[in-house]
Amino acid sequence: MTLTPTPEDRFSFGLWTVGWTGTDPFGAPTRPALDPWEYAAKLAERGAWGVTFHDNDVFPFEATEAERDQIVARFKQATDDAGLVIEMVTTNTFSHPVFKDGGLTSNDRSVRRFGLRKILRAVDLAAELGATTFVMWGGREGAEYDGSKDLWAAFDRYKEGIDTIAGYIKDRGYDLRIALEPKPNEPRGDIFLPTVGHALAFIAELDNGDIVGLNPETGHEQMANLNYTHQLAQALWSGKLFHIDLNGQRGLKYDQDLVFGHGDLLSAFFTVDLLENGFPGHPEAPTYTGPRHFDYKPSRTEHLDGVWESAKACMSTYLHLAEKAKAFRADPRVTEALEYAGVASLQEPTLDAGETIESFLGTDDGFDVTKAAERDFGFVRLNQLAVEHLIG
Amino acid sequence: MTLTPTPEDRFSFGLWTVGWTGTDPFGAPTRPALDPWEYAAKLAERGAWGVTFHDNDVFPFEATEAERDQIVARFKQATDDAGLVIEMVTTNTFSHPVFKDGGLTSNDRSVRRFGLRKILRAVDLAAELGATTFVMWGGREGAEYDGSKDLWAAFDRYKEGIDTIAGYIKDRGYDLRIALEPKPNEPRGDIFLPTVGHALAFIAELDNGDIVGLNPETGHEQMANLNYTHQLAQALWSGKLFHIDLNGQRGLKYDQDLVFGHGDLLSAFFTVDLLENGFPGHPEAPTYTGPRHFDYKPSRTEHLDGVWESAKACMSTYLHLAEKAKAFRADPRVTEALEYAGVASLQEPTLDAGETIESFLGTDDGFDVTKAAERDFGFVRLNQLAVEHLIG
Amino acid sequence: MTLTPTPEDRFSFGLWTVGWTGTDPFGAPTRPALDPWEYAAKLAERGAWGVTFHDNDVFPFEATEAERDQIVARFKQATDDAGLVIEMVTTNTFSHPVFKDGGLTSNDRSVRRFGLRKILRAVDLAAELGATTFVMWGGREGAEYDGSKDLWAAFDRYKEGIDTIAGYIKDRGYDLRIALEPKPNEPRGDIFLPTVGHALAFIAELDNGDIVGLNPETGHEQMANLNYTHQLAQALWSGKLFHIDLNGQRGLKYDQDLVFGHGDLLSAFFTVDLLENGFPGHPEAPTYTGPRHFDYKPSRTEHLDGVWESAKACMSTYLHLAEKAKAFRADPRVTEALEYAGVASLQEPTLDAGETIESFLGTDDGFDVTKAAERDFGFVRLNQLAVEHLIG
Amino acid sequence: MTLTPTPEDRFSFGLWTVGWTGTDPFGAPTRPALDPWEYAAKLAERGAWGVTFHDNDVFPFEATEAERDQIVARFKQATDDAGLVIEMVTTNTFSHPVFKDGGLTSNDRSVRRFGLRKILRAVDLAAELGATTFVMWGGREGAEYDGSKDLWAAFDRYKEGIDTIAGYIKDRGYDLRIALEPKPNEPRGDIFLPTVGHALAFIAELDNGDIVGLNPETGHEQMANLNYTHQLAQALWSGKLFHIDLNGQRGLKYDQDLVFGHGDLLSAFFTVDLLENGFPGHPEAPTYTGPRHFDYKPSRTEHLDGVWESAKACMSTYLHLAEKAKAFRADPRVTEALEYAGVASLQEPTLDAGETIESFLGTDDGFDVTKAAERDFGFVRLNQLAVEHLIG
Repeated sequence: MTLTPTPEDRFSFGLWTVGWTGTDPFGAPTRPALDPWEYAAKLAERGAWGVTFHDNDVFPFEATEAERDQIVARFKQATDDAGLVIEMVTTNTFSHPVFKDGGLTSNDRSVRRFGLRKILRAVDLAAELGATTFVMWGGREGAEYDGSKDLWAAFDRYKEGIDTIAGYIKDRGYDLRIALEPKPNEPRGDIFLPTVGHALAFIAELDNGDIVGLNPETGHEQMANLNYTHQLAQALWSGKLFHIDLNGQRGLKYDQDLVFGHGDLLSAFFTVDLLENGFPGHPEAPTYTGPRHFDYKPSRTEHLDGVWESAKACMSTYLHLAEKAKAFRADPRVTEALEYAGVASLQEPTLDAGETIESFLGTDDGFDVTKAAERDFGFVRLNQLAVEHLIG
Repeated sequence: MTLTPTPEDRFSFGLWTVGWTGTDPFGAPTRPALDPWEYAAKLAERGAWGVTFHDNDVFPFEATEAERDQIVARFKQATDDAGLVIEMVTTNTFSHPVFKDGGLTSNDRSVRRFGLRKILRAVDLAAELGATTFVMWGGREGAEYDGSKDLWAAFDRYKEGIDTIAGYIKDRGYDLRIALEPKPNEPRGDIFLPTVGHALAFIAELDNGDIVGLNPETGHEQMANLNYTHQLAQALWSGKLFHIDLNGQRGLKYDQDLVFGHGDLLSAFFTVDLLENGFPGHPEAPTYTGPRHFDYKPSRTEHLDGVWESAKACMSTYLHLAEKAKAFRADPRVTEALEYAGVASLQEPTLDAGETIESFLGTDDGFDVTKAAERDFGFVRLNQLAVEHLIG
Repeated sequence: MTLTPTPEDRFSFGLWTVGWTGTDPFGAPTRPALDPWEYAAKLAERGAWGVTFHDNDVFPFEATEAERDQIVARFKQATDDAGLVIEMVTTNTFSHPVFKDGGLTSNDRSVRRFGLRKILRAVDLAAELGATTFVMWGGREGAEYDGSKDLWAAFDRYKEGIDTIAGYIKDRGYDLRIALEPKPNEPRGDIFLPTVGHALAFIAELDNGDIVGLNPETGHEQMANLNYTHQLAQALWSGKLFHIDLNGQRGLKYDQDLVFGHGDLLSAFFTVDLLENGFPGHPEAPTYTGPRHFDYKPSRTEHLDGVWESAKACMSTYLHLAEKAKAFRADPRVTEALEYAGVASLQEPTLDAGETIESFLGTDDGFDVTKAAERDFGFVRLNQLAVEHLIG
Repeated sequence: MTLTPTPEDRFSFGLWTVGWTGTDPFGAPTRPALDPWEYAAKLAERGAWGVTFHDNDVFPFEATEAERDQIVARFKQATDDAGLVIEMVTTNTFSHPVFKDGGLTSNDRSVRRFGLRKILRAVDLAAELGATTFVMWGGREGAEYDGSKDLWAAFDRYKEGIDTIAGYIKDRGYDLRIALEPKPNEPRGDIFLPTVGHALAFIAELDNGDIVGLNPETGHEQMANLNYTHQLAQALWSGKLFHIDLNGQRGLKYDQDLVFGHGDLLSAFFTVDLLENGFPGHPEAPTYTGPRHFDYKPSRTEHLDGVWESAKACMSTYLHLAEKAKAFRADPRVTEALEYAGVASLQEPTLDAGETIESFLGTDDGFDVTKAAERDFGFVRLNQLAVEHLIG
């Protein structure tokens, strides 16, 4: 049963997702490009709430000011007419050959200055269109060869760039936050800030890091052999989950950008569980309240019908998983299994309230190491309950 | 030509490296276990400067206080006699079944308290023996199943644990710093703090993070599909490269712990280049001054002769690579290729000194996008120079 | 809802699966070892039909003839009492240190002769106990270092070994077939015959290859970044799918041996679809009729309760997926989507019946390349139907 | 020191390698396209002996007969003038959108017929130009979704296609062999015949398999987590190493096509050792006598200078490694270490000449299992000798 989304579900899509025409490293486009407003209208018809874009998804890199303004106005009108929110805007500093060694960390300073200006213009555009998130994916900030980059300088320049942009946002008083999008590789051999962890660590070094957070993408983290739900959890714990990119990936290979749920389905279940149910038992923990944003590609074997089928599939699967995650958390057998597994007891501080370390070291807990070692945690049964809810 | 190390090279080895008897998931030991002091003596004979250990590499988990003290004293004496420095001590909270769900983040609070006590005792031991680094590898802090962990609580408990230990070190006035060792998986399906990035981000949230840094291991980062040299660089840039674990890994598989250089050799070259030559042109950047520490395993096919051959191989390869990295940096062709590639120009700030953002946006750099896009960076030639130095 | 298996489902388990005590590269056992007959009885109680074992799962490597016979007799009696079939027997040529460089391809000829004798004895045992499959997993046949093996000789010796064993089976008139189990790595850096493809290619070179086929394991193929269902399909197409090892794996890491379905769930769905529904529309294609055999490990965090819960989970998930795969194939929407996607039309030969190549080249099909290029295959929608059946 | 190649070294390059203009999934071209004859002339100047191409590397997909003939003639003339051999020709059945679901295994029969005709035309062209190898990389023969392919039919159609082409070659009496090129994924999620093993197994099922062999590519096998040298060895052992594609890859990610030696350098050393030195001690084993063919891409950061530098680098590195491999095999320390490791003794059959299995089973070898288990194989030392030769 395909579930039908409504704007209350706050699903949003990048223009470049449904707008991908199928070019890949070994093949030419298989689909025509529509105009940006056509995608917007069709997304709205299918129940989407929001739309997002790179500057050059809407107007060409070479557009004059006048062309740019005219196209943007027409696009804005179309989204308004369709009732779509432009929730996020981003900028493309990776497709044009001038950015072949990066935008903010190119070895060519003139390129860095050009890239920075392009980004700042896109920031203005984002603010003008009412977006609240400005995503930055530094896909070309990286290297294939260790010797070709001054790595210390690369981090310094990356910091200079992000701090400048964040400072600009503050100066202008824009209601906008930056969300960095990590990726380990592709199109560069090694991309800087390859995972959620690296981006969080980088943000901690920024001067204007307070308005800089993350936009983790399912497949990107999985390309670093990592658990996506763990990534979201650490980003939330650091107060930095500003936006998300949901999609599907099947293991360590090229960036597949499959429909959400068409990759690691069990992982997708727990991702939705975290997004919808938050951290149960933690009133102090932030819940993710941002859009449910998809960054996927309709497979190249599909023509336009397949584009819209795949967009529907992303939303439908999310809604299914959300229902199942609710039922999972409400099931008394699950409650019992969670208790058996001691999941909630991890919330208890290890030290007693007010216990000093001296007192702790001087106390005999009467701990029975043999007995504790024989505890059955019941994790497999708990996971099987999840599987049975998922496929039940 | 095998190069011969001296104590000035500051090579150190974990007791568990030469002491590994060959047990693996599918096989029984192939070598006898020697006494800890025997390893120490033999390492010193081969030119090592330091030795490191987990508490239970020296005395058994079940040892009484008296047994423990006696064994430790004998071991200390042996290292003194051999002229070896005990530069780092760590603790084993992963082998005993009581730690099957972790030490600091076990769902069982009684285990967490037991684990914390064991760690604090090892901290005392480290200080007592004069070590300056206390490594913490949380190999069992993780999960196989997303539902089996309260992830928010897991980060809270991990923070509580590390902050408590770091606070204890400060209280006691020990000259000791904690170095966290990331690993993405094995023995858990997903380990918390899977990469250098995640650990840096975690440290940024600690109360006592000033004395907490990193001990990145070559193979561990490569198991997350990451570039090890980039990891070291980001750790240095964050001021947190406290210690290192050098070894070899051949791609995405089980933790191989091969001899340093027997994995990705070209990457090892640039790792040594960074360790020995630092960030050229950056007087402000910290250089890694810690031990050259190996965390590897002599292959299970080897008997005791092979153990010592493999230890020698780690040191000899390092020395070879250090020589080559010096020659690489000194070669005028390399200097020319670095310049051609614009490597040093990444040091120049993107904005001019004193340039405001308004002024920057109002300036026309006269940038020629077409010309800039046609720049030949010469990265392949530069890398080929590295290859030819390496194999020259 | 947990589904309850019956012997008609032909589920079987290796003794080493439920019998794994939790030793891993970083940890000691967390569970006691039961006697082999205890596992057999408990498996039968839970609905298993068969049991399998390595020789040394039942009796120790060092057992005398008399000890061996006595233990085997007692085990056989227990399986008879429990109504369990001993459907497969295998031999352990990987745990004992003597096999550290392999059994059939060790560089040490005396070890090869010893290994071959051990295997032949296990063949006798298999025949004696009525097993019809003799699995051979050459986990130690491989290398860490390319220089350490004469690769030509390794293939020759492997061939000599398998041909000798197969010849022995024929000579003795045993009703027994050999099933090779590929694995890419672990415990060796690179194992010979790393995937289904390599083993099939090897079998094609054997003199006695007619009774040699495959036992592909889910996780092993996924450790080579491969699609498990594709592997089963190629093995069936080559007439060589003799046995299977079902389990779960989460990406490119150590061999996890999770419960079936706890890894890549969507892949598990299509695996069961192939096993249960065969190749629809291909009356000429062989169907897999062997046991549904699980080769998994109850997670080390579990005690004995968790062992049995995990065994139940394997069977329950399989039964769920089998139901869903039947429903998927019976759904008219799926029939329509398959037709839309042209799936069945791949059965039509590309050349007409009797069409010669000359005639083919001389014919104008009136092919419209533009129109054909615009076909919408509807693969995403078809996959979404699978997902919705799976989680429906 | 860059070594200078000569035609005697038999280096060849695909036109699509130096001719790659830098388009990738996230970026537009960074280099202009030259005419095919320009590449040929420049390759010859740099010491290449041969050149290879896909049909549409030379003339466009849409070319008329007359255009095709004219362009081919001009290209042929240019290669003759340059003294270059056209040693291999291949066909492109992956770039045009009509092939989005494959050429020989598309679900659309009209596409299969069109694809087959295109391939046969390319076979004629190969023969006409004097090529002796016809490579077939079925990059689009595969699937993203298990349900979208009738896998049995896919293997049948693939067989029909290859058998038809091979039959055509025989009928025409062309001096041409087919070399299949495996790849695990990219651009499809899972490609059929993903590794050397799968392709060998497939060939064993062909009717015309005698003239069908392999063209294994370094990076492709490494993308399946496999050891490239092992792949070459098994292909040789099966008599099927018809051609090679040398390049570099850094782990499990997108297909990088780096310069040979810029990936896993230690593996490249042993690859060259096998290609140059064959299987030492095996006069009966075939040696690879085909071209040293590179299938790589000059990094997108490079302009035309970098293209030619990278082509030179491929050849220079190969020559360096060949020298080193010769020196390795000639070094008495290596001879001694090989003997110590028992490498050559793997050549001895496990059974004595004429030894029957009955006699073998009845013999007591006086085998001392404990002593054999304690053997030190010295594999690490042997590998260290290789490393020291490589970097010496």
